[in-house]
Amino acid sequence: MTIMHIGMIGLGKMGLNLVKNLLEQQIKVTAFDLNPTARMSAQKNGAQIATSLTELVAKLPQPRIIWIMVPAGKPTEATIKQLAVLLTADDIVIDGGNSFYRDSIRHGQELAAANINFFDVGTSGGMAGARHNGNFMIGGPANIFPQIKPLFQKIAAPNGYLYTGPTGSGHYLKMVHNGIEYGMMQAIGEGFEILQKSPYNYDNAAVAQVWNHGSVIRSWLMELAQQQFAKDPQLSQIKGIMHSSGEGAWTSEEAIRLHVPAPVISAALMMRYRSEEADTLNGKVVAALRNGFGGHAMEKN
Amino acid sequence: MTIMHIGMIGLGKMGLNLVKNLLEQQIKVTAFDLNPTARMSAQKNGAQIATSLTELVAKLPQPRIIWIMVPAGKPTEATIKQLAVLLTADDIVIDGGNSFYRDSIRHGQELAAANINFFDVGTSGGMAGARHNGNFMIGGPANIFPQIKPLFQKIAAPNGYLYTGPTGSGHYLKMVHNGIEYGMMQAIGEGFEILQKSPYNYDNAAVAQVWNHGSVIRSWLMELAQQQFAKDPQLSQIKGIMHSSGEGAWTSEEAIRLHVPAPVISAALMMRYRSEEADTLNGKVVAALRNGFGGHAMEKN
Amino acid sequence: MTIMHIGMIGLGKMGLNLVKNLLEQQIKVTAFDLNPTARMSAQKNGAQIATSLTELVAKLPQPRIIWIMVPAGKPTEATIKQLAVLLTADDIVIDGGNSFYRDSIRHGQELAAANINFFDVGTSGGMAGARHNGNFMIGGPANIFPQIKPLFQKIAAPNGYLYTGPTGSGHYLKMVHNGIEYGMMQAIGEGFEILQKSPYNYDNAAVAQVWNHGSVIRSWLMELAQQQFAKDPQLSQIKGIMHSSGEGAWTSEEAIRLHVPAPVISAALMMRYRSEEADTLNGKVVAALRNGFGGHAMEKN
Amino acid sequence: MTIMHIGMIGLGKMGLNLVKNLLEQQIKVTAFDLNPTARMSAQKNGAQIATSLTELVAKLPQPRIIWIMVPAGKPTEATIKQLAVLLTADDIVIDGGNSFYRDSIRHGQELAAANINFFDVGTSGGMAGARHNGNFMIGGPANIFPQIKPLFQKIAAPNGYLYTGPTGSGHYLKMVHNGIEYGMMQAIGEGFEILQKSPYNYDNAAVAQVWNHGSVIRSWLMELAQQQFAKDPQLSQIKGIMHSSGEGAWTSEEAIRLHVPAPVISAALMMRYRSEEADTLNGKVVAALRNGFGGHAMEKN
Repeated sequence: MTIMHIGMIGLGKMGLNLVKNLLEQQIKVTAFDLNPTARMSAQKNGAQIATSLTELVAKLPQPRIIWIMVPAGKPTEATIKQLAVLLTADDIVIDGGNSFYRDSIRHGQELAAANINFFDVGTSGGMAGARHNGNFMIGGPANIFPQIKPLFQKIAAPNGYLYTGPTGSGHYLKMVHNGIEYGMMQAIGEGFEILQKSPYNYDNAAVAQVWNHGSVIRSWLMELAQQQFAKDPQLSQIKGIMHSSGEGAWTSEEAIRLHVPAPVISAALMMRYRSEEADTLNGKVVAALRNGFGGHAMEKN
Repeated sequence: MTIMHIGMIGLGKMGLNLVKNLLEQQIKVTAFDLNPTARMSAQKNGAQIATSLTELVAKLPQPRIIWIMVPAGKPTEATIKQLAVLLTADDIVIDGGNSFYRDSIRHGQELAAANINFFDVGTSGGMAGARHNGNFMIGGPANIFPQIKPLFQKIAAPNGYLYTGPTGSGHYLKMVHNGIEYGMMQAIGEGFEILQKSPYNYDNAAVAQVWNHGSVIRSWLMELAQQQFAKDPQLSQIKGIMHSSGEGAWTSEEAIRLHVPAPVISAALMMRYRSEEADTLNGKVVAALRNGFGGHAMEKN
Repeated sequence: MTIMHIGMIGLGKMGLNLVKNLLEQQIKVTAFDLNPTARMSAQKNGAQIATSLTELVAKLPQPRIIWIMVPAGKPTEATIKQLAVLLTADDIVIDGGNSFYRDSIRHGQELAAANINFFDVGTSGGMAGARHNGNFMIGGPANIFPQIKPLFQKIAAPNGYLYTGPTGSGHYLKMVHNGIEYGMMQAIGEGFEILQKSPYNYDNAAVAQVWNHGSVIRSWLMELAQQQFAKDPQLSQIKGIMHSSGEGAWTSEEAIRLHVPAPVISAALMMRYRSEEADTLNGKVVAALRNGFGGHAMEKN
Repeated sequence: MTIMHIGMIGLGKMGLNLVKNLLEQQIKVTAFDLNPTARMSAQKNGAQIATSLTELVAKLPQPRIIWIMVPAGKPTEATIKQLAVLLTADDIVIDGGNSFYRDSIRHGQELAAANINFFDVGTSGGMAGARHNGNFMIGGPANIFPQIKPLFQKIAAPNGYLYTGPTGSGHYLKMVHNGIEYGMMQAIGEGFEILQKSPYNYDNAAVAQVWNHGSVIRSWLMELAQQQFAKDPQLSQIKGIMHSSGEGAWTSEEAIRLHVPAPVISAALMMRYRSEEADTLNGKVVAALRNGFGGHAMEKN
């Protein structure tokens, strides 16, 4: 088999690690990022560099394989729009980011109009997974998948990639994966908060460690909890603000659309939103109502 | 019918209003409170005063009817313990407070041992209801209930009292009433918070007002919301800390015990607890996990 | 003031009651429905009838006021599309149905392009409210509202209508109203189920009745519960399948979009969806996992 | 070091696997179960057998170490009561079952009165863990723990045991572990149900497999899901009834007691209870209310 050669667009936390992973697997990489510093990092690691999408496209053999690893939404939209013009028939575009699956379906249709093949690839495993033994859920045209399969055989964990079906199915599966992740993380967070307020003095890192060795809830998330507690036993250096980047919200909305009861994923999302608020009108209303009927004192601002 | 004469123990927000209500209904009241100022208030309103439980008991005709309106838990426990000694056979004790129903069952048994009759009376309607047209859910011995029925006919709203069955059933029903109340209040709070963050500029008081006139959600709680918004349109003078005094927690625990899914009442309770926390370990854990796998920034303390 | 004359499109449960209400208030009504039987009912009640939208438009004085009371979604879309062609400048279209507020914003823009005025009116109070003392939340052009205000002064409950702001704000407010309604209804349902499984034998109708007279949770929904329990004390004649027509889902989605934690409204929606399922894959997964680690028996199909 | 010799009471799914584990680790076991067949199984595996607690106690060297592995509640209570009489000072009792932590505190006190040492040991890892590489959370007297530490060094997974603090802390930690487990399992269940109703045709076993290799949600529970889906791709042979044995309920109750918001653990519990019901009064109430205000059809029984 000839050496594979792929283009990588986006050299942030995930993209750069993927480049290192690919290079280590003897896959040739031509890399582009708007940021020169990011390009330089890729170059130092052995990637060929392009300073524009046009140059990137020019440097790749046909049929080209280009992996987009930029933020979902506008950056991905803009990149795909440009590639639709620059690429030629039979080229392959992979969106490895966290795009909404309906956007991916549309992207697939837009590129298909120019006979360009599109794969929506949900990437899990975080930065560590991008670097080694990644996890990939791959939607797109079944007849074209064999062309990119060798790529995933090399950079994924053993059994760590799956062709999931038609366009959209990769990002859909990643969306649901993240919904489950929200629920698991919130469950873990609730558990440690109960321990914190319990009558006992538990050592959070030791607890996470024992739970990681033989228990029913052993999991990578618990391993990460162990690492974080080892560094900061009460996590006292950080605030408990739980941001979110969309997938949990999309999963909840999809559950609503499908009439699937998903109270745990939904509640996990709600608590993230609650953590973003210092005070709430909701709380004020309830406090005022309690005052209204029972004369219960309201705490003044 | 001869004039009724009852003893009232506890002259706080609820007790004093009940005394006024009773007096207005031509019921004679002998009142006791540990606080002399509270006693004086009752006296000014026309009640006879006792400065001790012993004096209270002495001033009442037999069979005595004594209404306890003190905080649930230790104060109620202590009062009932003393009355068990001071009262005589066929006397009647009414606990009109928010006691836990299992405590009331026990109180009933303790007093029954001395042939004293006990009624657990859940009182709703807040201070306004205590003053006029109250709401009462009454558990206790069915054969004795006719002796106190005239009392409720006078101080309750029309159709505003119910004999609910054996001892405990009154406070049980009040507990569930409050559980429903938690759910309703949280639903209202959520609604107004959505409006606050909506693309429109709603006038909260006007919204509550229109919802109270002909809508499906017209309710006394919405009327109270209207009154509070009229005074402070954004409730900006108060904090959204939602305290709780037990009934919602008991309802949730009872639902758990009975294997009844009660996610709304439970979620309402959870949000009350969340409002009592400025920051949470739960949130820190989730933020740290997101950082652990995805390098997402943590907000520093 | 001259007699008002309005056109009514849609003579179903809500529309026909509105027609009766309007006629009783001395407002002239020309009514249309695709169904001849429905038209005949309106006619018997005193309305003038049109057998097509064209005829309806022809029979109304200019500027015309037309009230659409057909199901949200396609029927409303189709009706507005036709009216956009048939009507002329300065005419007024009222959508009194449960349209999604973003659809209403679009409808307003589409009609504004032809200088036709559009109001999105959330209608609450059910069939009874349509008939007498209705509840209306009215979004649309502020400068045109005075032309239709007399209408609402007549058919609404006193204080039962509100001009809520620009187009979309009426249906938005109705959406949130229904979200609160979902939460309240589920809270009531949970409460009665706890009572059902409690150690006591409560009379549901009597409980609902007492809760409606002086309690904190007195509300129109509880009055409806009282009526239904009076007819069927355990509701044993019906299934507990809780359908939904969209507003609760929209409210949950809007809360997600706005990052408003709305766990109670969301949980109420989830339980509706759960009630539509006889069995769930969710449950099977959990049962299988329990079997997998603990050998807990699985119930066979 | 001399060979350890311990007594095992209870030879069910967990106890028998523990016996095999202990024997394999060169620990001598004298075993008792009320069921002769269970005793015979232990004997076949190399354990010495006792046919009564008295005989068991007689056959063990002093200070005795006895591991109780019977169902929580009455069976454990009864066993401890008998051992309190049969054992002598300095003996050690281990409760490896799922007892409620407050019961364990009491058991510790009762046995301490006879100078018998008590450890409450939360055991995780299921049957497989009991057999090999188990997981143990150990509460009890710190000064006595070194006597039993070698036992856990042999039968636990590496790093798979933790001394957690005073009596009760072992079962408390196991309780919270199970609460987290409830949340994780429900999140997984919700995710697969969304996939089931999604527009795509996912292969559940393949999905679980890919999620187990490199993804953020890789976990033992997902591995078990993979195994179960491999056997029955849609789990069509079983019902989705999710029973529970107490720990999730206790965790929820503890969260309520401590004012810790734990909406995910609580919602997971609620869905278990919901799965035990074929139909609900809750649902009937909501359906009847919808009928009451809007005339929405009720499905008849």
